[in-house]
Amino acid sequence: MGKIVVIGATGTIGKAVVNALGERHDVIEVGATRGAHRVNFADAADVSRLFQSIGKVDHVVTAAGAVHFGRLAETTVDQFWTGLRDKLMGQINVVLIGQAWVNDAGSFTLTSGITADHPVRNGTNAATVNKALEGFALGAAIDLERGLRINVVSPTMLEESVPTFGPYFPGFDPVSSLKVGLAYVRSVEGGDSGKVYRVGY
Amino acid sequence: MGKIVVIGATGTIGKAVVNALGERHDVIEVGATRGAHRVNFADAADVSRLFQSIGKVDHVVTAAGAVHFGRLAETTVDQFWTGLRDKLMGQINVVLIGQAWVNDAGSFTLTSGITADHPVRNGTNAATVNKALEGFALGAAIDLERGLRINVVSPTMLEESVPTFGPYFPGFDPVSSLKVGLAYVRSVEGGDSGKVYRVGY
Repeated sequence: MGKIVVIGATGTIGKAVVNALGERHDVIEVGATRGAHRVNFADAADVSRLFQSIGKVDHVVTAAGAVHFGRLAETTVDQFWTGLRDKLMGQINVVLIGQAWVNDAGSFTLTSGITADHPVRNGTNAATVNKALEGFALGAAIDLERGLRINVVSPTMLEESVPTFGPYFPGFDPVSSLKVGLAYVRSVEGGDSGKVYRVGY
Repeated sequence: MGKIVVIGATGTIGKAVVNALGERHDVIEVGATRGAHRVNFADAADVSRLFQSIGKVDHVVTAAGAVHFGRLAETTVDQFWTGLRDKLMGQINVVLIGQAWVNDAGSFTLTSGITADHPVRNGTNAATVNKALEGFALGAAIDLERGLRINVVSPTMLEESVPTFGPYFPGFDPVSSLKVGLAYVRSVEGGDSGKVYRVGY
């Protein structure tokens, strides 16, 4: 039983995380635009404000962030920054700022995605951001102090996301939210650090 | 025989690249602060200006970029942005802007580093940036058009860099610049795309 903050709790993956962890833990759900607690995690000041309002926690899960999809030949530098500012630095902001708010031996669990290993057309920004998150966790795992752990969950497309993302992932086999939720339980309750849990692929 | 622009030509790795490719190719050496051609590749406008001044090329090599080293517990969000703006987006700027200036069937070769696979203390920013570059190449390899290829060279510490970087890489076996140069030849003259050449480890 621990106090867990889930950032991106109202999204498809976030709901799976809350369902998987809610039974045995005190889960604080944080959304981008919905729910009692909200944060724009791309804004470091807003992340600080969030932790000041919720106080110390045992575990932090992030499952949020936008990336740019589009032909590389037409992708502008500004469009490419989208994913770096949001999905990448949003989650990194939470670790850099949140580490002071996580109790000893607590953990961070970030979310990357299958394009880190299996890129798709128009998905270079996603591949970049997802691999970056895995590099961050690999590096942070040996640098975090007070026994803090960090892992990344890299899911394939969820069954619930097929209507939205299906066209970007032709031939990809979707995974159940139940199975995705389990990976977050393994990261939070297990002893791993610096690990990437690839789910459904 | 092709026209190759090497960005970061005056650095330790860049010199190895120029030595390895200079014999059989027309190499245009570009430095950050030295040499006839200069670019601040973190500035997209400056990258555009560079390609306008040198015109069409067959191959582009980037071997440059700063990252932040420091304890994660003390790393600020602004410090973390250093590596994203410079080593990561600098090289990505060159691809996004340069793709229109590279002849059909040409190539890009970027530079990551051993911390992508073997992180070191205080090196989370480097691990993030290096993995991100590998994700970028993986994604871009299937998205580049006109037969353009892209690969990444990930060297361990070079022998020449031991005085500077040795303390950050305890127990790491340095590699010769000759061996590092070969990986760039393989990327430029071979047929690979989406590949990471790990050199010296």
